Amino acid sequence: MYHIYGDLISGNCYKLKLLLELTGQDYEWQHTDILAGEARTEEFLLMNANAKVPVLKIVDGDNPPQYLAESNAILNYLAEGTPYLPEDRYLRAQVLQWQFFEQYSHEPYIAVARYINKYLGLPEARIAEYHAKQEGGHKALSVMEEHLQGRNFFVGEAGNESATIADISLYAYTHVSHEGGFMLESYPRIVEWLRRVEALPGFAPMV
Amino acid sequence: MYHIYGDLISGNCYKLKLLLELTGQDYEWQHTDILAGEARTEEFLLMNANAKVPVLKIVDGDNPPQYLAESNAILNYLAEGTPYLPEDRYLRAQVLQWQFFEQYSHEPYIAVARYINKYLGLPEARIAEYHAKQEGGHKALSVMEEHLQGRNFFVGEAGNESATIADISLYAYTHVSHEGGFMLESYPRIVEWLRRVEALPGFAPMV
Repeated sequence: MYHIYGDLISGNCYKLKLLLELTGQDYEWQHTDILAGEARTEEFLLMNANAKVPVLKIVDGDNPPQYLAESNAILNYLAEGTPYLPEDRYLRAQVLQWQFFEQYSHEPYIAVARYINKYLGLPEARIAEYHAKQEGGHKALSVMEEHLQGRNFFVGEAGNESATIADISLYAYTHVSHEGGFMLESYPRIVEWLRRVEALPGFAPMV
Repeated sequence: MYHIYGDLISGNCYKLKLLLELTGQDYEWQHTDILAGEARTEEFLLMNANAKVPVLKIVDGDNPPQYLAESNAILNYLAEGTPYLPEDRYLRAQVLQWQFFEQYSHEPYIAVARYINKYLGLPEARIAEYHAKQEGGHKALSVMEEHLQGRNFFVGEAGNESATIADISLYAYTHVSHEGGFMLESYPRIVEWLRRVEALPGFAPMV
């Protein structure tokens, strides 16, 4: 059985819910309130010393439970053997390319701006940081917009793509990017792609 | 044939050199001078619209060349079938966990502090940012130090680990972390682990 320790205000946690629902896998969601510090308790640190959600706990009979951290690593684990993770070596590497892009060039701008704005209420002390996040976020959105020319999803030969966990990783914070001040009017291909993800059978919204 | 577009002042690029040397694979290194802006030319952007090194170009006979960006995605591609990437699904996911940790919780502090200090000469305008990077960098080093208790390498059951691309990813910037102001005296397990990586057959230094 899979147990997810997560908080659905976090796009990183939502990625796992979305994949598990799209692929019809059983799981138990253990709500971990990050704003209340529940990812920094002694008990939590034993699962992930880096004090971040989500964490996957894998329980298999009487064996000791196994733990896994980092949303995109967990996605790769859970998607194995499903249509959301291709078998081909080059396609798998492309999935990872977009997931590392997401964690380095997208999330630190778009998710952090959203957090400062929506969950911290844009406090005076962080307004400069909030504005500084806008440029990097728009750069990431531009890279995505350009890549989506003539494509339905992120990975695969154009015209022959299907949805993968790369789309799930990028969907998580892109679809709520307006909460970080990113308006998508000038990214029409991204808007169409968001609708395409939402039309996948089994799609589940963030909340 | 593999062509790597990279700059060896970048630990992200060095990761690929280190894996290719450790595994004895042929490649051609195409020096791309990042300080001179060679990762932002029109030609380069056709290979990686995100304007970052390294890029892997895969040339296979008369087929159109294939490109791959993001150092850790490229490592996963190049390590397939070698001892540096296990077959087991959970071990592979642990490799990814540490690689995503590296890109999100380690590199943005340790590599960026090093860049500001060593390559930009610690300019007045970035001194506050440089100092702000120290806390996050030490947090990452602490997580690594704790994990290395009783272990030789990062992935696998304690006592049964072997070197993987997770070690290569973390080695790249950790072994030059002093250039970003991070002294390793209080991380004895990390220091021993660095020596262990350097003792691997085929090890190649950064420059």
